[in-house]
Amino acid sequence: MNILDIIEKKKNKLQLTNSEIAYFVNGYTKGEIPDYQISSLLMAIRLNGMSDDEIFALTDSMLHSGDIMDMSEIGGCIVDKHSTGGVGDSTTLALAPILACCGVFVAKMSGRGLGFTGGTIDKLESIPGFDTSLSEKEFFRVVKKVGCCVIGQTANLAPADKKLYALRDVTGTVDSIPLICGSIMSKKLASGSDTILLDVKYGSGAFMRDEHEALALAEKMVKIGTMAGKSIGALITDMEQPLSDHVGNSLEIVGIIEVLKGKHNRLYDELKEVCVRLLTLTPLYKDKAAAETAFQQAIDSGKALKKFAEMVAAQGGDSSYILHPEKFVLGTREAVLAERSGYVTTMHAADIGRAVTALGGGRLTKKDTIDHSVGVVMKVHIGDKVKVGDTLCEIYHNNGKGLKEAYSMLQQSILIGESKPATHKIAYAFVNKDGTELY
Amino acid sequence: MNILDIIEKKKNKLQLTNSEIAYFVNGYTKGEIPDYQISSLLMAIRLNGMSDDEIFALTDSMLHSGDIMDMSEIGGCIVDKHSTGGVGDSTTLALAPILACCGVFVAKMSGRGLGFTGGTIDKLESIPGFDTSLSEKEFFRVVKKVGCCVIGQTANLAPADKKLYALRDVTGTVDSIPLICGSIMSKKLASGSDTILLDVKYGSGAFMRDEHEALALAEKMVKIGTMAGKSIGALITDMEQPLSDHVGNSLEIVGIIEVLKGKHNRLYDELKEVCVRLLTLTPLYKDKAAAETAFQQAIDSGKALKKFAEMVAAQGGDSSYILHPEKFVLGTREAVLAERSGYVTTMHAADIGRAVTALGGGRLTKKDTIDHSVGVVMKVHIGDKVKVGDTLCEIYHNNGKGLKEAYSMLQQSILIGESKPATHKIAYAFVNKDGTELY
Repeated sequence: MNILDIIEKKKNKLQLTNSEIAYFVNGYTKGEIPDYQISSLLMAIRLNGMSDDEIFALTDSMLHSGDIMDMSEIGGCIVDKHSTGGVGDSTTLALAPILACCGVFVAKMSGRGLGFTGGTIDKLESIPGFDTSLSEKEFFRVVKKVGCCVIGQTANLAPADKKLYALRDVTGTVDSIPLICGSIMSKKLASGSDTILLDVKYGSGAFMRDEHEALALAEKMVKIGTMAGKSIGALITDMEQPLSDHVGNSLEIVGIIEVLKGKHNRLYDELKEVCVRLLTLTPLYKDKAAAETAFQQAIDSGKALKKFAEMVAAQGGDSSYILHPEKFVLGTREAVLAERSGYVTTMHAADIGRAVTALGGGRLTKKDTIDHSVGVVMKVHIGDKVKVGDTLCEIYHNNGKGLKEAYSMLQQSILIGESKPATHKIAYAFVNKDGTELY
Repeated sequence: MNILDIIEKKKNKLQLTNSEIAYFVNGYTKGEIPDYQISSLLMAIRLNGMSDDEIFALTDSMLHSGDIMDMSEIGGCIVDKHSTGGVGDSTTLALAPILACCGVFVAKMSGRGLGFTGGTIDKLESIPGFDTSLSEKEFFRVVKKVGCCVIGQTANLAPADKKLYALRDVTGTVDSIPLICGSIMSKKLASGSDTILLDVKYGSGAFMRDEHEALALAEKMVKIGTMAGKSIGALITDMEQPLSDHVGNSLEIVGIIEVLKGKHNRLYDELKEVCVRLLTLTPLYKDKAAAETAFQQAIDSGKALKKFAEMVAAQGGDSSYILHPEKFVLGTREAVLAERSGYVTTMHAADIGRAVTALGGGRLTKKDTIDHSVGVVMKVHIGDKVKVGDTLCEIYHNNGKGLKEAYSMLQQSILIGESKPATHKIAYAFVNKDGTELY
């Protein structure tokens, strides 16, 4: 077997065998096959595609390039949610305590933020004392005791993906459904849960530009997950504007606490949809109605908020911040005002994320440190009517750092037009092994 | 401008501008763009193709990456023939003196052999004293005086091609008509002649596997050459068996001398076709009949043979070898015998070339030295009837070096079957700016 024959086959639209796929994934991960041959193969895959069997073999080879978590000692039903990433996406944090109240386990390993998207781990570290680097033993102990635990990724999951992604990023081969699918699913399958809900986002703040691309990716990932023996579904959700009104680190924790206290907003609506769909993928809930009742009870009873405080305490954090969110130290407020009247037509969510990074709340390189006190709170949504001088959003800054830049970015990312725009539903579709259901 | 945007455009089947093409060709040649980005782009070009304008821009950028020969001081009509390479292809050597007798100039820079194909320069160096490394001034002087001169390539023609070809060779992107066209035509246009005949070969000993592929390539090259203002045509010729019965270095010179003396064989037929087509591309010959008469006279009068001797002398060689070819020192003869009776159905020309290399008559690496005395003389052709014990070919070896290996390769490369096979015409088609003429 050699890499040139493999390139030749894919170039000629022939199907690669499992062992050919394993050969190039392993050879590249070990540094035995050079970048320039893999980039040629990746472009052939981008242009000629891959069958479901090939994508499964790719995912499987990438999965086996590193550690595979074994969570069987936790027992019960272990669920996982994966978002393809976006701005102000705090759902993971709110979802963990809610689902733990609904009888399933959430054992979540999460990442740090880079570029315009925030990271769950960074947000949690806004809470004084919160430890995101538990040992595996400690992690399992918290999951079993509390029902949920969120830590940083320590295991070496799918190292093949790290290497392949870095190459794809500089060779124009990121936007390939087989390659995206292999990348996401290899990490998901390595992380050890039985039930997975994928939140595939589309729009200005997301990776897939429209709902059709997002749906095609979602269907492929559900297929691969099902082939791997998982109970898996995917929601296609709108990322035209930030999901949470709060964007930033401490601010997103504050936003979650509001939702766990029962505040109805976009984040609440999406959270409900995600939790209900995820619960129906488990054997514990027969239908949406039963899952909805459980979700509602978790919030209305105050149990979900208490569970969040319990998780924070179990991970060494000061849980008084959860019960008294006014304790969070926030930056100085500065309102961004509307310069014209009309309707909010567009929000460039990615630029809102970049504004937070400019304020010091995100990272441009992996080495940057984060200011947890800064961020943005949105005061309007797409479709709202505004007058000159109305507050569009509030900036929380620290001694004016990045304020001017952030102000100008926010002014330009919230567009105001003459006529009321069409607004999107929270979700466009739900996909599971039985098919696709449009909203 | 940046390379990622260029990859993105080609990936999405958009047309690249002249300046985008110049950017990647120059950037890669200067080492400013890494291999892995160019290989991804090359695969996108291989799969999505290039328009004629893009191929022209590619050729032009590669052409301008190095020296461009200016032969205007020679005056008159300067012709060039380019073969896409094959086994026993001695046409260049015979063609130069014949065409010089027909009133045109042949100023040829040629290469050395590598792998299974022999090189014109290596063959000429079989003649004692022959100097293939004349200065440009000396080269022009011989062309003007004799009418023809063949030297090794000294000018730095199209260095971009050298780098791109090396990368294509290891990334599965050799078989792309736009890339082959850019590679061949950039070198041809850099070499300074006004009239060009391309000999595009197909078959087991050639690069293009069938006549349709070869024709598509030929049509594209003629188009690009015409766009560049050249008078250009292409013959599509069969390389199912070695062109000359003589394969090797001194042996091919011996074979050429036979043809220049008027021996009619496959080499003679192809040579006639090539010369006549090339002459009709010049303003000197109005039609094939006039060109045929000139060809015939050059041979029949003995002028072509004398012209060959004159060229050899002008380049410092011992021209007595041309008039007395028995002076060439050849290896020891060993016949390869037919092991069964029937018809010769197939000759693996590339393997016959490899047998000569095994005997020491070719190079596996650029550093290898060549034994000019060895080679193979074919005694049968495709379609010939043979009996057990008949001689298929004769090996010329030096003290048995490589003999066993060559014998076995030759046995396996000349196949004998039950029924008489269809034989190919020398040429399949001729292409010029007016269109394609099938034979």
